[in-house]
Amino acid sequence: MRMAQLSEESSISVATIKLYLREGLLPPGTRTSPNQAQYGLPHLRRLKLIQALVKLGRLSLAAASDVLDAIDSDRPLIETFGVAQRAATRVVDRASIRDAALERVDSLLGDWHVDPDGCGRYDAAAALAALQDSGLSATEDWYRRYADAALAVAEADLDLVDAQEGRSAKAETVVVGTVLGDALFAGLRRAAQQHVSYTRYAAGDAESPPAR
Amino acid sequence: MRMAQLSEESSISVATIKLYLREGLLPPGTRTSPNQAQYGLPHLRRLKLIQALVKLGRLSLAAASDVLDAIDSDRPLIETFGVAQRAATRVVDRASIRDAALERVDSLLGDWHVDPDGCGRYDAAAALAALQDSGLSATEDWYRRYADAALAVAEADLDLVDAQEGRSAKAETVVVGTVLGDALFAGLRRAAQQHVSYTRYAAGDAESPPAR
Repeated sequence: MRMAQLSEESSISVATIKLYLREGLLPPGTRTSPNQAQYGLPHLRRLKLIQALVKLGRLSLAAASDVLDAIDSDRPLIETFGVAQRAATRVVDRASIRDAALERVDSLLGDWHVDPDGCGRYDAAAALAALQDSGLSATEDWYRRYADAALAVAEADLDLVDAQEGRSAKAETVVVGTVLGDALFAGLRRAAQQHVSYTRYAAGDAESPPAR
Repeated sequence: MRMAQLSEESSISVATIKLYLREGLLPPGTRTSPNQAQYGLPHLRRLKLIQALVKLGRLSLAAASDVLDAIDSDRPLIETFGVAQRAATRVVDRASIRDAALERVDSLLGDWHVDPDGCGRYDAAAALAALQDSGLSATEDWYRRYADAALAVAEADLDLVDAQEGRSAKAETVVVGTVLGDALFAGLRRAAQQHVSYTRYAAGDAESPPAR
C-alpha cells in the first residue's frame, strides 16, 4: 500500500508516519519511484506498536526506538526485559533518591532476587519516597498488598511470555507487556476502585444501583 | 522561611517554585516586604506533593492543579476519586477506542460496578486495543489475573483511605494513592518480573545467585 493508505489504515497522520521513518522507528518501504514507496502489513503492525508505546506507554521516541531495537535483536530475553524496563522507567535522577527509601523497598521485597541497579528497585523507591514526602500515612499492610499483587502480575507476565513460540514473539511480549501492562493495570485499578468505593460508600444509599 | 530556603529544603529550583506560584499550584507566602515573603512547612509539603504528581505521576500542571483543588475542596470522596482518576488518565481521544475493546473490557470486569463513562473502563479498553493491535497474543488467563490483582490493590487502596481520620487526610490519600500508586505498582512489578525471570531462567545456570 502507499503512504496515504498506510495513514488511513492506521489512523496515524502522514506527518507522524514520516517522523517515525526519519527517526528510524519504522523501516523504509520498498521504493517504486523516486517519490513513492510501498508499505506492507508489517509496517502497519509496527506503526500501531510505535503509537501504543508512545501514546499509551508515554515513551519518548528515543525510548521507543530502544525497545524496538531490542525486539529486532537476538539478545537474551532477560536482557530484553531490562531494555523494556529502562525505556519505561520514570526515574531519571537516581542520586536524589534517599538511602532510607531504598532500604524500605529492600525490606518490602524481602527475598526477591532483584538487580540492585535495576529500574524496579529505584522506581519503587522513588514512588515510596514521594508518598512519604507528600504526607500520606501509608501502612505496612498497604505496601505489602501492593507487592503481593505485583508478584501475581509478574507471574502472569512470565507465563504469557513462556506461552509464546519463538524468540521474536517472546521478545515482543516482554516489551509490549512491560510497557502496556502498566497502562492496562492502571485502567483496571481505576475500574476496581470505582467498584470497591461503590460497594462500600454508595450501595447502601442508592435505591437501585446505577445502570452499568 | 524565605524562598531560597524553601528551594534548598525541597531541592526544587527557585524558578520552578515561582512557576508553581504563578500557576496557582502553591499558595502565596505571607508577604513581609514588597519583595519578600515567608513560607511555612505546609508550603514545603505541598511543594513535594506537586513535584511528586508532576514528575512521578507525569501529570500536566493543569491536571495537578485539578487534583490539588479537589484535595482542598469539600467534595464527596467518591467525586474526589473521579477527579484524581481523570487527572491521571492516559486516554485523551475516546472516539478512537473501538466498541469491541470496550465490550471485551466489560466482559472482563464482569459484575463490577463501574461508571460506563469513567476513566477506568476507557483506559483499560485503550490498553487492551493497543495490546491487540501490536499483535500480542494475550490469553484470557493473563487478563483475568490482571483484573484480580487490580481488585486486590483497589481493596488495599480503599482500606488505606478508610484508615485515615478526617475528610482532608482521606482526600489526600485518594489523590496521592491514585496517582503515585500507579508509579509504586509499576516499580514493584518490574522488581517482581526480575525476581520471577531470575527464578525461571537464570537460577539453574548460576553457580550461586548474584548478590542482592
